[in-house]
Amino acid sequence: MSVQTTPLNDTSRLCVHSITTKPWSIEIAIEQYAKAGVHGITVWRDALEGRSISVVGRQIKEAGLQVVSLCRGGFFASAEKTQRAAALEDNLRAVEEAAELGAPSIVLVPGADPRQPLEDSRTQIEEGIVKMNEAAETAGVKLSIEPLHPMYADTRSAVNTLKQANDMCERIGSANVGVAVDVYHLWWDPELQREIARSGEGGRIFAFHVCDWRSPTRDLLHDRGLMGEGCIPVSKIRAWVEQAGFNGFIEVEIFSTYYWTMDQNRFLDMILEAYKTHT
Amino acid sequence: MSVQTTPLNDTSRLCVHSITTKPWSIEIAIEQYAKAGVHGITVWRDALEGRSISVVGRQIKEAGLQVVSLCRGGFFASAEKTQRAAALEDNLRAVEEAAELGAPSIVLVPGADPRQPLEDSRTQIEEGIVKMNEAAETAGVKLSIEPLHPMYADTRSAVNTLKQANDMCERIGSANVGVAVDVYHLWWDPELQREIARSGEGGRIFAFHVCDWRSPTRDLLHDRGLMGEGCIPVSKIRAWVEQAGFNGFIEVEIFSTYYWTMDQNRFLDMILEAYKTHT
Repeated sequence: MSVQTTPLNDTSRLCVHSITTKPWSIEIAIEQYAKAGVHGITVWRDALEGRSISVVGRQIKEAGLQVVSLCRGGFFASAEKTQRAAALEDNLRAVEEAAELGAPSIVLVPGADPRQPLEDSRTQIEEGIVKMNEAAETAGVKLSIEPLHPMYADTRSAVNTLKQANDMCERIGSANVGVAVDVYHLWWDPELQREIARSGEGGRIFAFHVCDWRSPTRDLLHDRGLMGEGCIPVSKIRAWVEQAGFNGFIEVEIFSTYYWTMDQNRFLDMILEAYKTHT
Repeated sequence: MSVQTTPLNDTSRLCVHSITTKPWSIEIAIEQYAKAGVHGITVWRDALEGRSISVVGRQIKEAGLQVVSLCRGGFFASAEKTQRAAALEDNLRAVEEAAELGAPSIVLVPGADPRQPLEDSRTQIEEGIVKMNEAAETAGVKLSIEPLHPMYADTRSAVNTLKQANDMCERIGSANVGVAVDVYHLWWDPELQREIARSGEGGRIFAFHVCDWRSPTRDLLHDRGLMGEGCIPVSKIRAWVEQAGFNGFIEVEIFSTYYWTMDQNRFLDMILEAYKTHT
């Protein structure tokens, strides 16, 4: 069980999700991230609304940041056929947006619908990814399936373990489709280390997301903690993904009503501190 | 995937957990359950405070009800040795209480401690059960390990899948230690049907708990729904446990701030209706 990690003495691998500092516009986020020494940004699509996407892509580049992912596509599952068709269309738009932004990959939240069995949602997810991947491969944009915590199995994801995501990737069989490993969703799983190794063998760890599980957690959606603030062994899981061959960006993705009310520069300082100390 | 269940036309297998009607004292619960046609009761230990346990046991019997389980023992995991010792003592008391009450089994909530790795908690849980089981076997009280939803992995249970509970039972290797299958905790698991079959083969399905997962769920602890109110395929999972050989009580266990504020007789009527229609 003993694992070794190199301390994160610099921020060369630090990426922040734009939603983490939700009160900031994308323009301010780019400026402040760069100033603070953040090197990567994962852009949430809502932050692009009303903007020229290529202009935002250029701003990111000029600020010295790298676009890590576009977040998020997916939500393939629905009991209604028209909704599934609409989701596919939206996902094809996401592929275009990623290409325009210069994002090498899209994070996929698989989706679920409480009106239908999980098995049906899983079938629809896989079918949706296969269809979306035709366009994504052509555009040179990778797709990362993100298994979500089982507490989101009603409306957000019928894929709740890394094993399921690995199985799905193997069935799809495209080098363009991989996984996003998010410690918040997966930390509890007794098979996590093994499945991370399996993802690594398949060359399919496309993303690594960090935050922490606050104890107690006050809200199912918006109470994520800073690394070190909760009970997730973040650096242990980082060691596992690195042993599996991953050396890409470490993405801080925090949804928190609490932190969103704070001065965002102060919050960004805390993120950098938590990154160096507890990641 | 197709499964058959016999409709629950009568309430001969209906058991209610005393905590489900939390505003009622145990005496009123016994009286009202019996009057409504409930046949079994699982008694929560807090309901016994300040009572002679043998008297409560006699009241239950005289009302024509059967004690299904004592709820709950467990919480074996702690970073502090003194707390683990205290937990063991408390669990030995629970064995005595179960014997006094006439409960054939105790539901075990395994426990977890955010201050230590999940692996440590799991080891402590298994060690604790082995020790407790010596007394439980002697007293003729069975122990049911209840895997809890992964959203409780911080403080309530480091055992979060039925697979883990099955593995643990097999390692312990006592016919006196089995599992409690609770749809709320396990419905999302893609391996659930297989693991239920495995529990059945081992002759270790000691309890079956039902309620529903509300969508959205407003609170991590106290927002469980009535069967049919959420997205859990309750009757499908019932079919799985019955195919695995289980034909015992079907236990309604609902923690709900919403239902606890309602007139409890009205709520009990709704439970019976949901039992017949959606279980």
